[in-house]
Amino acid sequence: MRWKRRRQILMTEKAEMVKEMIRQLGDDAVLYRDEDLLTYECDGLTVYRGMPIAVVFPSSTAEVSGVVKWLYENDIPFIPRGAGTGLSGGATPLGGEVIISLVRMKKLLHLDYDNREAVVQPGYINLALTNSITNKGFYYAPDPSSQSNCTIGGNVAENAGGAHCLKYGVTTNHVLGLEVVLHNGEVIDIGGVPDTPGYDLMGLLTGSEGTLGIVTAITVRILKNPEGKETAMAYFDTVEDASYAVSDIIAAGIVPAAIEMMDEIAIQGVERATKPAGHPEGSKAVLIMEVDGIAAGIEEQIKDMVSVCERHNVTEIKVAKNDRERGRWWANRKTAFGAMGAISPDYLVQDGVIPRSRLSEVLANIADISAESGLRIANVFHAGDGNLHPLILFDARNEGETDLALKVGSQTLEACTAAGGSITGEHGVGIEKKEDMRLVFTEREIDRQLNVRSVFNPNNMLNPDKQFPKPARCGEVKQAVGSGEAHQVVGQG
Amino acid sequence: MRWKRRRQILMTEKAEMVKEMIRQLGDDAVLYRDEDLLTYECDGLTVYRGMPIAVVFPSSTAEVSGVVKWLYENDIPFIPRGAGTGLSGGATPLGGEVIISLVRMKKLLHLDYDNREAVVQPGYINLALTNSITNKGFYYAPDPSSQSNCTIGGNVAENAGGAHCLKYGVTTNHVLGLEVVLHNGEVIDIGGVPDTPGYDLMGLLTGSEGTLGIVTAITVRILKNPEGKETAMAYFDTVEDASYAVSDIIAAGIVPAAIEMMDEIAIQGVERATKPAGHPEGSKAVLIMEVDGIAAGIEEQIKDMVSVCERHNVTEIKVAKNDRERGRWWANRKTAFGAMGAISPDYLVQDGVIPRSRLSEVLANIADISAESGLRIANVFHAGDGNLHPLILFDARNEGETDLALKVGSQTLEACTAAGGSITGEHGVGIEKKEDMRLVFTEREIDRQLNVRSVFNPNNMLNPDKQFPKPARCGEVKQAVGSGEAHQVVGQG
Repeated sequence: MRWKRRRQILMTEKAEMVKEMIRQLGDDAVLYRDEDLLTYECDGLTVYRGMPIAVVFPSSTAEVSGVVKWLYENDIPFIPRGAGTGLSGGATPLGGEVIISLVRMKKLLHLDYDNREAVVQPGYINLALTNSITNKGFYYAPDPSSQSNCTIGGNVAENAGGAHCLKYGVTTNHVLGLEVVLHNGEVIDIGGVPDTPGYDLMGLLTGSEGTLGIVTAITVRILKNPEGKETAMAYFDTVEDASYAVSDIIAAGIVPAAIEMMDEIAIQGVERATKPAGHPEGSKAVLIMEVDGIAAGIEEQIKDMVSVCERHNVTEIKVAKNDRERGRWWANRKTAFGAMGAISPDYLVQDGVIPRSRLSEVLANIADISAESGLRIANVFHAGDGNLHPLILFDARNEGETDLALKVGSQTLEACTAAGGSITGEHGVGIEKKEDMRLVFTEREIDRQLNVRSVFNPNNMLNPDKQFPKPARCGEVKQAVGSGEAHQVVGQG
Repeated sequence: MRWKRRRQILMTEKAEMVKEMIRQLGDDAVLYRDEDLLTYECDGLTVYRGMPIAVVFPSSTAEVSGVVKWLYENDIPFIPRGAGTGLSGGATPLGGEVIISLVRMKKLLHLDYDNREAVVQPGYINLALTNSITNKGFYYAPDPSSQSNCTIGGNVAENAGGAHCLKYGVTTNHVLGLEVVLHNGEVIDIGGVPDTPGYDLMGLLTGSEGTLGIVTAITVRILKNPEGKETAMAYFDTVEDASYAVSDIIAAGIVPAAIEMMDEIAIQGVERATKPAGHPEGSKAVLIMEVDGIAAGIEEQIKDMVSVCERHNVTEIKVAKNDRERGRWWANRKTAFGAMGAISPDYLVQDGVIPRSRLSEVLANIADISAESGLRIANVFHAGDGNLHPLILFDARNEGETDLALKVGSQTLEACTAAGGSITGEHGVGIEKKEDMRLVFTEREIDRQLNVRSVFNPNNMLNPDKQFPKPARCGEVKQAVGSGEAHQVVGQG
């Protein structure tokens, strides 16, 4: 592969590339010194690291196109990057790529309230959209925990979700059109009209983790704020009780906007971190349940959910008194990953999905994995749609514990797929779960996916070697991380 | 192209093929005599016709796989077909193909109420699914007008919609997994687990009109019946008033399950056909509005919709007294296409999509097209999501009137795309709208789509030459229909 050669890029070649990038973008838009590149060694998954050869900051579609065209013609691989909050290493170099950062393309280009659409550049921050339209009574539904930092371009790349996916769907359900710079610099528009005929390329691009093109403008659906909204928190003495309550709420025909669960360790973490919510000491499980829609129906639904919880031995239930309290509860929940830093030197977050009916069984399996490995596992998850986030707590200073944590992460995914589930709900495959793809796909199915990739990324120059394992027939089942510094850990703490 | 050769298939080759098909499937599963093939000359779009060389009826995935493998290896093109109710000629031979009918694969394979899933074979009838699960309080949401005849396999091929798409989305939003026989007979599974990682091949296959594979099992989402439901009909003196009422209902933040509109000519048709609903004589426009969900919120929403209608000069509003009346109203609406037979010897139905905010402007343009051409156009449409169905009324016995009707159909699509819309909401491209694809896509974008096709359909043997125009560089901009009997008309009436 050409890319292998490029990992040993010559100093003279690098100098030529940097000169060209500066010529195209200006000298304030190119980083190339090692000390400036360190920040770009990894994204939100800090366990894997690799050095880019440069980072460039285009300000327009034309600039992205020009940069991509030159890099492609000069056989230099490249990686699009948003805010770098991704959790599977999608924007982490394997070594030797140019990172194309989209953070300067952060404009809100167009708002159309009549047709419920907004057009944004890829570097536009997720939460900024809701903030920009809330005074007109609108919002943007996908709400990953990182929404105050992550970009909508990154959300498209990862097909990001969030707490409210249960009712409102993930990013792909809210994307109406894309402007895309292809591997060779060509710019195409996909979608952007209602019900585009032909093959669903918009669906194909969404969630393709930067391997099929660089999104330079995104048309998204905006929603009218629901007329009413209520949020309740319910505490249980066992995770099983909480799990059965979730199943029965859905079975009762209630469609909550969100049902989140945190277990005992997760609760300890969030209570000791930056935004405590006053969870009762010693709680074994909490559900955060939200209902929204027509005001008239809200109270009845909350009442129904409460009575389901009562049948499952709930110990305490409270309903948010106002928007401020609701906001505080959600802020508390959304700090859960980072909050692990308060109770563990390092942690690794996983992202498995299971059929909702097998929640308590899979949680029991994860508890067994924890007991066997000796590593604590906190569970924070979108319970309503079966999207688990096991948080594996470890201490990288202990010899071998990082590798153990990675292994335990894979074991939790195996537990999910064994129950008919999947290896990622919203964080993507990236570097981290490439090999775990074999839990879901046969070799031939992976080939089929790579055939599709070859249409848009013929030389594997666009975010090379991400998202899929190397085909086994190449005799390379496990692939080392490119920088030669795999498994170097920083973590949070 | 190999296929061209096949159109002049030799009698000896045909005899060999028929013998092999009978060997594989049994002699009650193969039609090959001209008189038996006539029924398969077209689907629901009767304007275009072409003769298949045989029709085969496999009963299992293994049989589909065996047939496809043999046909592929022997260079004989093939077309999957469901109930043949499609409206864009997707299952119509261009001449010389073998039709693979899936009607004998009509089993409901699996029901999982806990996880809200059903698995069906492709020949399973759409409405049969709802009928099978209604006693448990569940239903299947996509509801095309042909739902009592059309198959779920066909729905997947066309990404079919229906009156309730407005709230519930089209078929692609309800498909969770597919078993697919590929062009060479290989069988693969796509999706089937929650949140499948990798590229969204399920989205790619859905709506691919039989050009990427033959779906042999489909996992669909089933929904819990809404607790409450109300349906209202509102009459107006002008189509403009009705259009503005629709816009304002959506703007008010109400999310109706459906808002359908019929204009004066359509109303005359349905009242003279098989299921009259008692629409007042001389009504210029009727809206059928349905709200469903939590019982407590329903009445308020109906009240809000009524008050919007009142602001737009509604002349009469009635609310369905019970399920029977509601059922009668929907049956009336769903006969609208066929009902044109009561007021015109022939008709052609179109399927344009526009941004909702431009409804009244585009309807005015369509009225102009009607006046200029001298052909009456009835309008029946899913108003809430801007999906128009202009019904072009004509008499095929008049010299040249069929060609005129086809031209007028294209003109209505031009009016839609000029307003930022698209050429199909739910009927697909098929044969009919191949050239109209150029209204939406550039040549390079079409190339890109054909590149994707080539991954799954490398020799264009699977439903050949459908859905996309011939690339212009081949010097063949307009392609004649294969049978040599293009534009032969039968129509309805």
